[in-house]
Amino acid sequence: MKIKNVTIIDTFAEAWTLEVVRVVLTATSTEVALGGAHQFAGAAGSSMIGSRINAGIERAALPQETPDGRPGVFVSMAMPPDQREAMLEEIELRIALASLVPTIAVFDAAVEAAPGETVNIHDKFSISSERWEGYDTERELAGRKQCVLPTTTGEFVYEKAYKVCTNGTDGHFVCFAESETAAVTAVAAAKEALTAVDGVAPMGYGLEQVFREFDYIPSLRDKIADSKVPDGVNSILNLLMFGASPELMRQAMAVSLRAAAQVPGVMYLGAMNFGGEFGKHQYHLHQLLK
Amino acid sequence: MKIKNVTIIDTFAEAWTLEVVRVVLTATSTEVALGGAHQFAGAAGSSMIGSRINAGIERAALPQETPDGRPGVFVSMAMPPDQREAMLEEIELRIALASLVPTIAVFDAAVEAAPGETVNIHDKFSISSERWEGYDTERELAGRKQCVLPTTTGEFVYEKAYKVCTNGTDGHFVCFAESETAAVTAVAAAKEALTAVDGVAPMGYGLEQVFREFDYIPSLRDKIADSKVPDGVNSILNLLMFGASPELMRQAMAVSLRAAAQVPGVMYLGAMNFGGEFGKHQYHLHQLLK
Amino acid sequence: MKIKNVTIIDTFAEAWTLEVVRVVLTATSTEVALGGAHQFAGAAGSSMIGSRINAGIERAALPQETPDGRPGVFVSMAMPPDQREAMLEEIELRIALASLVPTIAVFDAAVEAAPGETVNIHDKFSISSERWEGYDTERELAGRKQCVLPTTTGEFVYEKAYKVCTNGTDGHFVCFAESETAAVTAVAAAKEALTAVDGVAPMGYGLEQVFREFDYIPSLRDKIADSKVPDGVNSILNLLMFGASPELMRQAMAVSLRAAAQVPGVMYLGAMNFGGEFGKHQYHLHQLLK
Amino acid sequence: MKIKNVTIIDTFAEAWTLEVVRVVLTATSTEVALGGAHQFAGAAGSSMIGSRINAGIERAALPQETPDGRPGVFVSMAMPPDQREAMLEEIELRIALASLVPTIAVFDAAVEAAPGETVNIHDKFSISSERWEGYDTERELAGRKQCVLPTTTGEFVYEKAYKVCTNGTDGHFVCFAESETAAVTAVAAAKEALTAVDGVAPMGYGLEQVFREFDYIPSLRDKIADSKVPDGVNSILNLLMFGASPELMRQAMAVSLRAAAQVPGVMYLGAMNFGGEFGKHQYHLHQLLK
Repeated sequence: MKIKNVTIIDTFAEAWTLEVVRVVLTATSTEVALGGAHQFAGAAGSSMIGSRINAGIERAALPQETPDGRPGVFVSMAMPPDQREAMLEEIELRIALASLVPTIAVFDAAVEAAPGETVNIHDKFSISSERWEGYDTERELAGRKQCVLPTTTGEFVYEKAYKVCTNGTDGHFVCFAESETAAVTAVAAAKEALTAVDGVAPMGYGLEQVFREFDYIPSLRDKIADSKVPDGVNSILNLLMFGASPELMRQAMAVSLRAAAQVPGVMYLGAMNFGGEFGKHQYHLHQLLK
Repeated sequence: MKIKNVTIIDTFAEAWTLEVVRVVLTATSTEVALGGAHQFAGAAGSSMIGSRINAGIERAALPQETPDGRPGVFVSMAMPPDQREAMLEEIELRIALASLVPTIAVFDAAVEAAPGETVNIHDKFSISSERWEGYDTERELAGRKQCVLPTTTGEFVYEKAYKVCTNGTDGHFVCFAESETAAVTAVAAAKEALTAVDGVAPMGYGLEQVFREFDYIPSLRDKIADSKVPDGVNSILNLLMFGASPELMRQAMAVSLRAAAQVPGVMYLGAMNFGGEFGKHQYHLHQLLK
Repeated sequence: MKIKNVTIIDTFAEAWTLEVVRVVLTATSTEVALGGAHQFAGAAGSSMIGSRINAGIERAALPQETPDGRPGVFVSMAMPPDQREAMLEEIELRIALASLVPTIAVFDAAVEAAPGETVNIHDKFSISSERWEGYDTERELAGRKQCVLPTTTGEFVYEKAYKVCTNGTDGHFVCFAESETAAVTAVAAAKEALTAVDGVAPMGYGLEQVFREFDYIPSLRDKIADSKVPDGVNSILNLLMFGASPELMRQAMAVSLRAAAQVPGVMYLGAMNFGGEFGKHQYHLHQLLK
Repeated sequence: MKIKNVTIIDTFAEAWTLEVVRVVLTATSTEVALGGAHQFAGAAGSSMIGSRINAGIERAALPQETPDGRPGVFVSMAMPPDQREAMLEEIELRIALASLVPTIAVFDAAVEAAPGETVNIHDKFSISSERWEGYDTERELAGRKQCVLPTTTGEFVYEKAYKVCTNGTDGHFVCFAESETAAVTAVAAAKEALTAVDGVAPMGYGLEQVFREFDYIPSLRDKIADSKVPDGVNSILNLLMFGASPELMRQAMAVSLRAAAQVPGVMYLGAMNFGGEFGKHQYHLHQLLK
């Protein structure tokens, strides 16, 4: 299978179940919302490396898309199911840090169709007493309970309860390119395509190089017995993503793969797996793109 | 003292000693460097609230300003002196997370004139064995030792040793405005002015609203006995910064105060203090601006 | 009628028929496409003041939305019907200027449902001989004819024919605010909302202050007999837009008005008209927002 | 001569005298100033192709750098000396178009050291009567006369007189790369480096591909007798610039060449000339970089 000059390797991305929380941060302007989102989603590129959460910025939210009608940014976060407690703790901290950013509000933006469990983070961590010393009040917005905290600038508002989507997943593809600039350009274009799929976010920066996969490191090509680096390929880069459901992930992988294939210098598009032995999901590239 | 229509309150900002580490992240493009910087400096708005480090993005670094001649971004980080160990651990984690971003390199960019102690973070945390399994090599660049790690995209490079500036400081001012939009616009302009002072960064997003200072919360004006909210003021917002030395902080506060004063709707510029009882430094606004 | 604290004046925006051409500029990255779009749509804020065309940038185009699957930017242009020849000449010039930007391609992106007439700009202006000295070739993409020009970087591609939508229209609303910062913040949020309506673009920067409307100038409030500046209002700013059809314009005005109404400091939202005597269209605010 | 793996061809860029006008647009925020700058500098990539002026955006101006202490953006414009009248007319139009952007002000920002002649554009084109119907007033700022026009949002301010620098020049270099992505990435990095040289701006987008130079078009390599496309090179891209003096141009070319040389995939850096027969200046690459 080829898209333009690019060979789509007949393989699959092995993927794991993740629990996903999706929020929208709104503010007086997109600019402030984005500043808040960078803080909210930062230092979160890989819990395997040690970040306390995995997170990514999906896209800007238009005023008409948000609960309070102001500009915003969608941010998603995820952790493996057995680390839900750690994820919720980190979300609590990041909500508290968001209280510093003027005009910011935080709302649940979970994908409606995805199954999940609602957790009242505000009550679970006793945020009212622990952080706000009881100065907060409650407000209802579209039937959902908000915590309202008076601040020097105005107020800080956040939703009390968030749906933890329990059937989330990671996803990725591998871009094999002639050069570093081609690899970066291609995966950057792929990341742009992702913004069309609500509920799927890049993990961290999204464009992900890997150290551990020695058989995919071109400079070790001659030193590794079963190197997987094809002739002519000098740079390999992944797009690493996660989303609220396998169906959304399949959509996301399809559009992002197609975008990557348009960039000159891309030779193959593939994926990594362990034979399907460990992960719950398998996203077969040929099925996604047919 | 007035700047345009704005009254500069005759007061001072009380400030504390901080230890500061400053890095430059370079990459194939400013765009990628900035993506890496957002990850590097995220979730770091306030160690008092619970972030494991305080950090901020200073500005873009031009290719000719960086050790490897590529576009970059300056990022500073800080913690109180008694939390140096925690700061270094968090920096180590963030360097490891930076390894995910293609083409990124991390270099020490400490302000030369500021006193400090060099710490070899690479050796201190045995990063070579703990994270890279010994696959890294060493390279010298301009007399400084770099760790070089082969990756799927190319290589990940970072400096092994960083100077911890021991005479750093925080700083801030308080903007008293007629409205929320005026407050945000004014402190945003002030934050722009900061970029001229190398070695000073906003803390987190920089524009900082406060919850705990009840006497500065306009909506509680009638409920607090000694409210400090002047008549006509409806929104109060701080610019919170930190830098490598008190001298740099004085420069930074001067330029940022002047920028804030230009925005219509700003009524007063002031600062918060505890009478000078706790912090080592006092930045007197009238002295800064005369 | 009120939205939050904002009074929606019971009035209408008088509007004129415009002919509209909509293109998408694609490139190797969104960043380059946007650079090309700024050049393509610049110096085009008002043909009444003297720009040779009216133009505006709508939004980024995702790779999967464009004819060649690469990232892009949607740009719209317009002139009154009696100035079609001038509009087409200016479009021809701007296509020629686009040939300077590496990897840029220009495609027709006219709104399908809007009525119009197709004009082969390439043939009309003999671009092949006049500009390319016959070095161009033709390529078909999705049934549409493209001109392909070899360049030093690769190739420059543009569509030969464009649909001129003949039932286009301008549109606007007037934001009456307490302050300049509130006015700018509100209309900026309104402009964000516009991006949801494909086929409607801001005219020039979109946030439009006016000189000629003396009865709307707050600083002349006491000098003008029938000043229309309400008490408490100190700054008035319009969002000026244009689009491919009145139906799209009504959608655009509705979403942008609602977004503006969320910003604190906005007191009234209204519109300007000449009693409906001159323009073909009337967009009644209360009808749009009910 | 080599920089890293890149061969610097021993050649020179032939350049012509240009007259240059440099302005700074200030506004309530960098964001609005940049929007105004895109309008001010748009559709201006090449007067040879037909744009009525050549222009480029240099960089953001910090509040402390501008005459009114607000954030801004530096924009430069140029035309050959024999087209000064056309240039001034186009500047007058672009100033008038700037009056639409709320909070924008326009000031002369000519490089002090460069020789030139001051032209009072306001008087020359009778802007007061022709455009403002006499409603403008005059204000002095730092000894320079400003025109002040009351508007619906506040006021529009612009400097009346501008220095036309008479010893300006264009400049460029040619980047020969293995691939399109390498060429674009390299010249983009080069353009970043330019921002350090006040008084030099990219011409239009700056990254400039060329159609007319058939001997530099890789896809015509086999068809052109004396093709200048070296083996291994598949994409060629220029950085086209202009500035207020030859000295500034030499600085600009040096820093931008060095930045381009850092990008993998760049093979040669060179320049175009006609043997020095036509242009007044010759910028020899080896002299610039030694």
